[in-house]
Amino acid sequence: MLKVGIIMGSDSDLPVVEKGIKVLEEYGIPYEVHVYSAHRTPVEARDFSVNARKNGFGAIIAAAGMAAHLAGAIAANTTLPVIGIPVKSAAFGGLDALLSTVQMPSGIPVATVAVDGAANAAHLAAQIIATSDAELAKKLDDARAKNSEGVLAKNAAVEEKYNK
Amino acid sequence: MLKVGIIMGSDSDLPVVEKGIKVLEEYGIPYEVHVYSAHRTPVEARDFSVNARKNGFGAIIAAAGMAAHLAGAIAANTTLPVIGIPVKSAAFGGLDALLSTVQMPSGIPVATVAVDGAANAAHLAAQIIATSDAELAKKLDDARAKNSEGVLAKNAAVEEKYNK
Amino acid sequence: MLKVGIIMGSDSDLPVVEKGIKVLEEYGIPYEVHVYSAHRTPVEARDFSVNARKNGFGAIIAAAGMAAHLAGAIAANTTLPVIGIPVKSAAFGGLDALLSTVQMPSGIPVATVAVDGAANAAHLAAQIIATSDAELAKKLDDARAKNSEGVLAKNAAVEEKYNK
Amino acid sequence: MLKVGIIMGSDSDLPVVEKGIKVLEEYGIPYEVHVYSAHRTPVEARDFSVNARKNGFGAIIAAAGMAAHLAGAIAANTTLPVIGIPVKSAAFGGLDALLSTVQMPSGIPVATVAVDGAANAAHLAAQIIATSDAELAKKLDDARAKNSEGVLAKNAAVEEKYNK
Amino acid sequence: MLKVGIIMGSDSDLPVVEKGIKVLEEYGIPYEVHVYSAHRTPVEARDFSVNARKNGFGAIIAAAGMAAHLAGAIAANTTLPVIGIPVKSAAFGGLDALLSTVQMPSGIPVATVAVDGAANAAHLAAQIIATSDAELAKKLDDARAKNSEGVLAKNAAVEEKYNK
Amino acid sequence: MLKVGIIMGSDSDLPVVEKGIKVLEEYGIPYEVHVYSAHRTPVEARDFSVNARKNGFGAIIAAAGMAAHLAGAIAANTTLPVIGIPVKSAAFGGLDALLSTVQMPSGIPVATVAVDGAANAAHLAAQIIATSDAELAKKLDDARAKNSEGVLAKNAAVEEKYNK
Amino acid sequence: MLKVGIIMGSDSDLPVVEKGIKVLEEYGIPYEVHVYSAHRTPVEARDFSVNARKNGFGAIIAAAGMAAHLAGAIAANTTLPVIGIPVKSAAFGGLDALLSTVQMPSGIPVATVAVDGAANAAHLAAQIIATSDAELAKKLDDARAKNSEGVLAKNAAVEEKYNK
Amino acid sequence: MLKVGIIMGSDSDLPVVEKGIKVLEEYGIPYEVHVYSAHRTPVEARDFSVNARKNGFGAIIAAAGMAAHLAGAIAANTTLPVIGIPVKSAAFGGLDALLSTVQMPSGIPVATVAVDGAANAAHLAAQIIATSDAELAKKLDDARAKNSEGVLAKNAAVEEKYNK
Repeated sequence: MLKVGIIMGSDSDLPVVEKGIKVLEEYGIPYEVHVYSAHRTPVEARDFSVNARKNGFGAIIAAAGMAAHLAGAIAANTTLPVIGIPVKSAAFGGLDALLSTVQMPSGIPVATVAVDGAANAAHLAAQIIATSDAELAKKLDDARAKNSEGVLAKNAAVEEKYNK
Repeated sequence: MLKVGIIMGSDSDLPVVEKGIKVLEEYGIPYEVHVYSAHRTPVEARDFSVNARKNGFGAIIAAAGMAAHLAGAIAANTTLPVIGIPVKSAAFGGLDALLSTVQMPSGIPVATVAVDGAANAAHLAAQIIATSDAELAKKLDDARAKNSEGVLAKNAAVEEKYNK
Repeated sequence: MLKVGIIMGSDSDLPVVEKGIKVLEEYGIPYEVHVYSAHRTPVEARDFSVNARKNGFGAIIAAAGMAAHLAGAIAANTTLPVIGIPVKSAAFGGLDALLSTVQMPSGIPVATVAVDGAANAAHLAAQIIATSDAELAKKLDDARAKNSEGVLAKNAAVEEKYNK
Repeated sequence: MLKVGIIMGSDSDLPVVEKGIKVLEEYGIPYEVHVYSAHRTPVEARDFSVNARKNGFGAIIAAAGMAAHLAGAIAANTTLPVIGIPVKSAAFGGLDALLSTVQMPSGIPVATVAVDGAANAAHLAAQIIATSDAELAKKLDDARAKNSEGVLAKNAAVEEKYNK
Repeated sequence: MLKVGIIMGSDSDLPVVEKGIKVLEEYGIPYEVHVYSAHRTPVEARDFSVNARKNGFGAIIAAAGMAAHLAGAIAANTTLPVIGIPVKSAAFGGLDALLSTVQMPSGIPVATVAVDGAANAAHLAAQIIATSDAELAKKLDDARAKNSEGVLAKNAAVEEKYNK
Repeated sequence: MLKVGIIMGSDSDLPVVEKGIKVLEEYGIPYEVHVYSAHRTPVEARDFSVNARKNGFGAIIAAAGMAAHLAGAIAANTTLPVIGIPVKSAAFGGLDALLSTVQMPSGIPVATVAVDGAANAAHLAAQIIATSDAELAKKLDDARAKNSEGVLAKNAAVEEKYNK
Repeated sequence: MLKVGIIMGSDSDLPVVEKGIKVLEEYGIPYEVHVYSAHRTPVEARDFSVNARKNGFGAIIAAAGMAAHLAGAIAANTTLPVIGIPVKSAAFGGLDALLSTVQMPSGIPVATVAVDGAANAAHLAAQIIATSDAELAKKLDDARAKNSEGVLAKNAAVEEKYNK
Repeated sequence: MLKVGIIMGSDSDLPVVEKGIKVLEEYGIPYEVHVYSAHRTPVEARDFSVNARKNGFGAIIAAAGMAAHLAGAIAANTTLPVIGIPVKSAAFGGLDALLSTVQMPSGIPVATVAVDGAANAAHLAAQIIATSDAELAKKLDDARAKNSEGVLAKNAAVEEKYNK
């Protein structure tokens, strides 16, 4: 199966990123995790990206905060789908990271998810790989159904409590 | 080849969306275009989404402005990758559409691109399909190289004019 | 009397929503509470909305955060008045939910109240039902008068303390 | 039938407001239009509001820009449903008017619609009156269906043009 | 000496307002404090404002949060200078109150100070009264000089610690 | 009578400022107009401010855009009331100038009016001078009444056109 | 003399950048202009940056819009001072480019100037080079004085027109 | 070696500023620290700036919050490079200070770094001085390399933990 690369700009992003790792584990999707900074280790970030397709990756997730250039810097060096997670930081609630990640120039897209949205980044990576993997697509549908059931169970509890 | 669905919430979004259609044409990727509104024709939007995978789609692009629920409404009914284009409108420069598109709850991702970023939505759809289509992946790399050459040509012109 | 439907996108919205339930209790207005997600249980959300008028509802309150599509998704399936409560979330202080709720396209209004404004959502639902219920209208005027008296009592305490 | 009051803070708001008047005309709902300013003619604004219920009004629409206090000033003097239209102005794209209209304190709700959303203000007023008027409710459903047909017709035209 | 009126929309604003009361006390300026709400006790707010000049007031300070209409509602009923304090609230860090206070229509100014800026509201009220009170003007200059000395003392301490 | 100083940071602010000059002319208040920049002619800006009270000024209006430091720079050198007009510029619709003008530190207030709100700056200056000038206070009340009559006349025209 | 490098992400930024070129010409500072994109020609951008110091540059100006990564990408590859110009684009008035440029992580500073502030970028580059070039420092002081004189001349014209 | 001046508007900014002092210490760059307020001690701020070049300074760092005029006030009185640190405050997360610092008018640049970005302000000051100090330039390159090694070490730890 195609692998998912998970890159974060700083190991302080790990608490956010781990929610995505957990989702990939649940789907049984192989992955690799790295700390590469667009600004502090640009060479490593570039090398990973340039070689990602031939190294068996199907999608790359990049998490970064503030002037979050990481996803864009990776996207500039590969034509694999790159998923950007804007990480919330102190000053602007993640608006800086969101705009730095999503407002990419024409030709170099970054598939941006919500601020701190690592779980959805992993779901999206799984959806991408599932476009050529019917078994994984089935797992996604099952997980979606289970997710709905969870909401329905909560609904039942709320109805029980409030509706006489 | 897997098809790309292009859905817009209103035909007034066509001038934005057409930049994406052009990119898909250049890559030779089959596509379908529809006007389905999350709020005005929710049944049609739902039916398209529920059946998209079995109808041969590999990714769905959804463009909408203001309280842009369209991409999320489609994503709620399929586990195919859904790409959201926030369309600029009069009051908030697209911030309303961007936040309505990108801030999705866990389990239902929307791959969001820049405000009015239809070309990148199409590039991203192509990248997704190319994860299982080596020929298309080659085309993406070639297009990327050509894009770089375009910038280099502009650089040459600027250097010629300004650097003596 | 017409009932009020109270829908929330997640049971984590309950602490906000309960302030509205309390107001309806005080007015003696019948209500039903449900957890329906626009994205995770779209079928249930739709079914409730489509049948709400014939099931005796006079207004529907919908509370959701982030890309808050719930109120709009309900409004798309009924012509009853739908009241939207944007719920504050971590990244943007509720601006994402506010814009996602209020910026609806022409033809599908959502009556939006303040971020986390569940009490006012209930007051507004009561005002709507009171347009055809003179007794309830009387209760609303009485509650308003009592509210004013509360402010006047606080004024008296402040005047006592500060004005010699 | 209950009437709808349409109040604007300045006659410069007329181009926005007229879209709402047109909707009320289409539904055959009686209405009155006034220019009352919360700050420049507060007495008239107050008198209208205090007497609105006994004068046969079922809902009041208030349109104002900048520090848009009008809807709140009316809501402070009646327990009828008050619908606020934030009007776009030069400096902040309507964000000032939106926040001034929607962020009302507990007990005094304003049902806020989109920036310049006069058509939806009128649709919402109609929905409120229709809670006790089955014939009007039928008209609303018919208008909704016609609205959907309009989108479907546009969809057909787009499909015809783009999908071969 | 002319008095300063201090009005707050809710007694929850007292912790903010007290910083202004303290400044007036230091200058020896007579004042009155009231809790009047633009929306919950509009009659009292109006009566105070209409009679303020003849009751010996020279300036009115109004503090309110969220859709902060209080300062504007007072300014609509007097031609005394009205000073608005936007109070920080949960959702928008005071941006809602700031825009609701400062963006007043032509003819009805509100002299707006910083979010939670009650001390400066009092300094400004003192400056206004000092335009016709040379003794108070002298006190203001003395307080300013003392304020500078405080900064210089802190500078001395910092220089002592850091500059060898 | 006390004079009003009108300072702008650049003569490009004249179209904004002239609306304030017109108001002062109507009230018959003496004034002086200067172009002093906080950054480009700091000495002149300082000298004017330091001497303003003894030169017969009762209030100073300062208009500036972008990083609008002018009002604050003047307020730092006088204890006269200083009124700040944030001027709209290209990038941020005046939000930069508004925040730079209104968010002053404790002890140095700037009475801030709306973006481009020169007319209200002049009304406010007149209100300040009128605190010790009963004749001017009378003029302000008359102008306010006339302003109301203007709104009522517009109301009459609108009622004539729309209410049958 | 040390040279200034001027890099823009797209030749569409030339109208902004030319205002900076003009300033460098006036100071007689040698410069080179290039179009290098952080995302479309990352290799060229990197090569220029890595070699800039040994090629005789003293400062690098980088102009880019939207997700403006260019200045950061250059700063990641040199320890020369890098000056970032956020370029205004359609959706967010330059806020996206400003946050993407200024919010750099610790260790990799970008000296950010105003949106579209190319003239100030050039002045800043000149100031940097002047720290070791007394003759240039003299020119800067002269230009500053001339700038002040320009404001004073405009002040004289305004005083002549308005102050009788 | 040229010295770096570090000015803060209030000693409450010390916790932010100390991160910059630490960086200068590491590079062995001489510095002076002062508390000068643009508004409360404008004379001292001006005197320091006017004499900074002849007193051996090569760059000035200015830290201030809210209506952060300090960096601009210093830049108005010297042609040395002035680096502005916008300090985060309660209401707007530092957006007020950022816009007040970065949006300077043409001719008076302020080199702005991230909100609370004191470390980068010091790195930038070092880069400026290093343009004429090869030994310091070498230190900067060494520190950059060490910074990269730190990221690589963290990467190794993360890879060890997550990649089996």
